[in-house]
Amino acid sequence: MDGTIAVVGLGYVGLPVAVALAERCGNTVGYDISAGRVAALRAGEDETREIGHARLTSCGLAVSDDPAALEGAETIIVTVPTPITEERRPDLTPLQKACETLGPKLRKGALVVFESTVFPGVTEDICGPWLAQASGLRQGRDFALGYSPERINPGDHVHRLETITKIIAADSDVALARMRALYGAIVDAGLHEAPSIRVAEAAKVIENTQRDLNIALMNEIALIFDRMDISTRDVLAEAGTKWNFLPFTPGLVG
Amino acid sequence: MDGTIAVVGLGYVGLPVAVALAERCGNTVGYDISAGRVAALRAGEDETREIGHARLTSCGLAVSDDPAALEGAETIIVTVPTPITEERRPDLTPLQKACETLGPKLRKGALVVFESTVFPGVTEDICGPWLAQASGLRQGRDFALGYSPERINPGDHVHRLETITKIIAADSDVALARMRALYGAIVDAGLHEAPSIRVAEAAKVIENTQRDLNIALMNEIALIFDRMDISTRDVLAEAGTKWNFLPFTPGLVG
Repeated sequence: MDGTIAVVGLGYVGLPVAVALAERCGNTVGYDISAGRVAALRAGEDETREIGHARLTSCGLAVSDDPAALEGAETIIVTVPTPITEERRPDLTPLQKACETLGPKLRKGALVVFESTVFPGVTEDICGPWLAQASGLRQGRDFALGYSPERINPGDHVHRLETITKIIAADSDVALARMRALYGAIVDAGLHEAPSIRVAEAAKVIENTQRDLNIALMNEIALIFDRMDISTRDVLAEAGTKWNFLPFTPGLVG
Repeated sequence: MDGTIAVVGLGYVGLPVAVALAERCGNTVGYDISAGRVAALRAGEDETREIGHARLTSCGLAVSDDPAALEGAETIIVTVPTPITEERRPDLTPLQKACETLGPKLRKGALVVFESTVFPGVTEDICGPWLAQASGLRQGRDFALGYSPERINPGDHVHRLETITKIIAADSDVALARMRALYGAIVDAGLHEAPSIRVAEAAKVIENTQRDLNIALMNEIALIFDRMDISTRDVLAEAGTKWNFLPFTPGLVG
């Protein structure tokens, strides 16, 4: 890859991407809004435990909490979280702040890729205009948009960035070719090209929804069986003998 | 097996059980409330297409719509449906009618096994008393209860009665031993003994609920994506590239 790569957001999603890009493509900077996170990473400490000390200190990744680090990057990957509001609606504030921070640093010809979980349309209809507004550049002409949903399974050292098939999608064939080169360099499991950014966004939403719904069902079942003095563990052991029963268990996320 | 075996209800669940028992244990009668169904089966025609003509006519199963056929059976397997009412509550009427038909024919020492999908407690707290009432016999002393949830996947010729692990549960160790012999004779995939009838009932309920919920999610998703002009087929193809995405699709039952 030519030109600087910047990763915005160095949590459990962004850090593995930034480290892998630094190792395999070089010339990668990581930006995070948290000075504490950046200081810890500089000391080789990743509190999310995705990246070990030795790898973090030897990968060549530059990290910073100064937006100046984003200046002139050719490719920017945004991995900020998308929480929900108290009313349980999507909270796009971190995305908006990322676009407002990044926009003024954006150069012509840049590709901005989002990895955050969003409802279909957010990348092109909301983030693109935010970037255009903050940069004074034209979406789709002066800068391109891409989307590649993160599939990190926190704490899972078998299914990692490198070993999970990654979806890529872009707003043009040229941008898609750039994403193919970018992610192809770090994802050994291979890429899957979605027909549109919206389809890729939708796929990520239903992946999360399906998982959450199945865990929620187990939680409801556990509540009901507790009241009936039936052991949920026993019931799951029985149901698990059916060839197509899905082994979800009660819990917060799994 | 000694003594007559009777199967009450010859739908897509009961017929395969009755045919397999007739073939492997002999001395099996099948009872169905529908004279039309019985006439068709006698002619070798199974409209559910679970059992072919040749097997049906050669298995040795006697079928009848006369409750007298149930007289004196040592083991009775009840496979009647459990629909829902207009208010979407469980409709136990077919189970109640089966118990009222069967009760007067029940002999001392009989084992009555239910395969119907029911909420936990129905076999022992509802069907048992119905049988006691209709027979004048004492539940647990004069007759025993068992439960073995059906796992038939209609139209699936790979996952069949013989090839699906079957849960068995009973109200006593003696009854469980009888069920082990009974189902062990026809289920090649092996049996799984539940610690109680209630646990086995609960396992069946969550198997169905999990499947229904996942299909319902896909139906909801398809409705939403249609309104957004996003192809659900495309989205499912993308999501399906994740190692743990579950390949449910929109539909009525699958």
